[in-house]
Amino acid sequence: MQMVKRTSHADSLCGVARPLDAIGDGWSLLIVRDAFDGLRRFGEFQRSLGLSKNILAVRLRNLIAHDILETVPASDGSAYQDYVLTEKGRALFPLLVALRQWGEAFCFAPDEAHVVLVDKATGKPVPRLELHAQDGRALAPEDTVVVHPSAIRRTKRQRAKAG
Amino acid sequence: MQMVKRTSHADSLCGVARPLDAIGDGWSLLIVRDAFDGLRRFGEFQRSLGLSKNILAVRLRNLIAHDILETVPASDGSAYQDYVLTEKGRALFPLLVALRQWGEAFCFAPDEAHVVLVDKATGKPVPRLELHAQDGRALAPEDTVVVHPSAIRRTKRQRAKAG
Repeated sequence: MQMVKRTSHADSLCGVARPLDAIGDGWSLLIVRDAFDGLRRFGEFQRSLGLSKNILAVRLRNLIAHDILETVPASDGSAYQDYVLTEKGRALFPLLVALRQWGEAFCFAPDEAHVVLVDKATGKPVPRLELHAQDGRALAPEDTVVVHPSAIRRTKRQRAKAG
Repeated sequence: MQMVKRTSHADSLCGVARPLDAIGDGWSLLIVRDAFDGLRRFGEFQRSLGLSKNILAVRLRNLIAHDILETVPASDGSAYQDYVLTEKGRALFPLLVALRQWGEAFCFAPDEAHVVLVDKATGKPVPRLELHAQDGRALAPEDTVVVHPSAIRRTKRQRAKAG
């Protein structure tokens, strides 16, 4: 039996695991959601999330350490700092949309009201995010397989030998 | 200042927040990843994740309570149970792909090896998951806006009045 320890995924070879040090807790995802919604100030995040100051400060520091948020001088010229998404943070958009759409589909009753993400140009809800192959086929889980780097290297060597 | 408390997002009106009771921690996402990769047994998850039995058991119970995993009789006819994804669990596929692709893009050095999700039919990595509008336009964060249910109801009322 192992000791319980705080595990870092920083050395994992898996793209699902490695981000979890940065965004593997719910509060961090909600801070990023709020940043997409235009919140910038410590107090705005605090009011939105109902978090204690110390917990919010720890989460913000962690997001900054992972280059997801950065601080910039306050937009109103005051002495405060604003928290804004970096390019890496903005790239979390599909992940947040996927989380939102799964939540809407499975965590609400059919007639239950929820917040809706709409396309500004049309005012209509954004379509479902779907994974497609290069040729446009929809890809289900069983259409895909995870390949480890060693297998890829082996295949390349085999090809090199064969070629 | 608020007391620190364990918060449930079960009453949130937001599709991003409400799923977090079910999948808002990294281990739960990694269990779901392993289930997509074909792991079914308690011992298989334990070896894959290096988790203690009690923590793994708590996570599995929570995923079952949220109807993401279910137990079925062992496929080999033994007295063991297998853990398999429900329909709701399988619907997490786009979320896991989004997490994986963000991780691969931002959490690895350019020349660093990582696990790759490939299309079985072509053997090629799956394309990037992108959000598109009904008419095919790529949707960036600033092309979208979050609308609250009260605003939607108001709009419907206004339309009803106008119509």
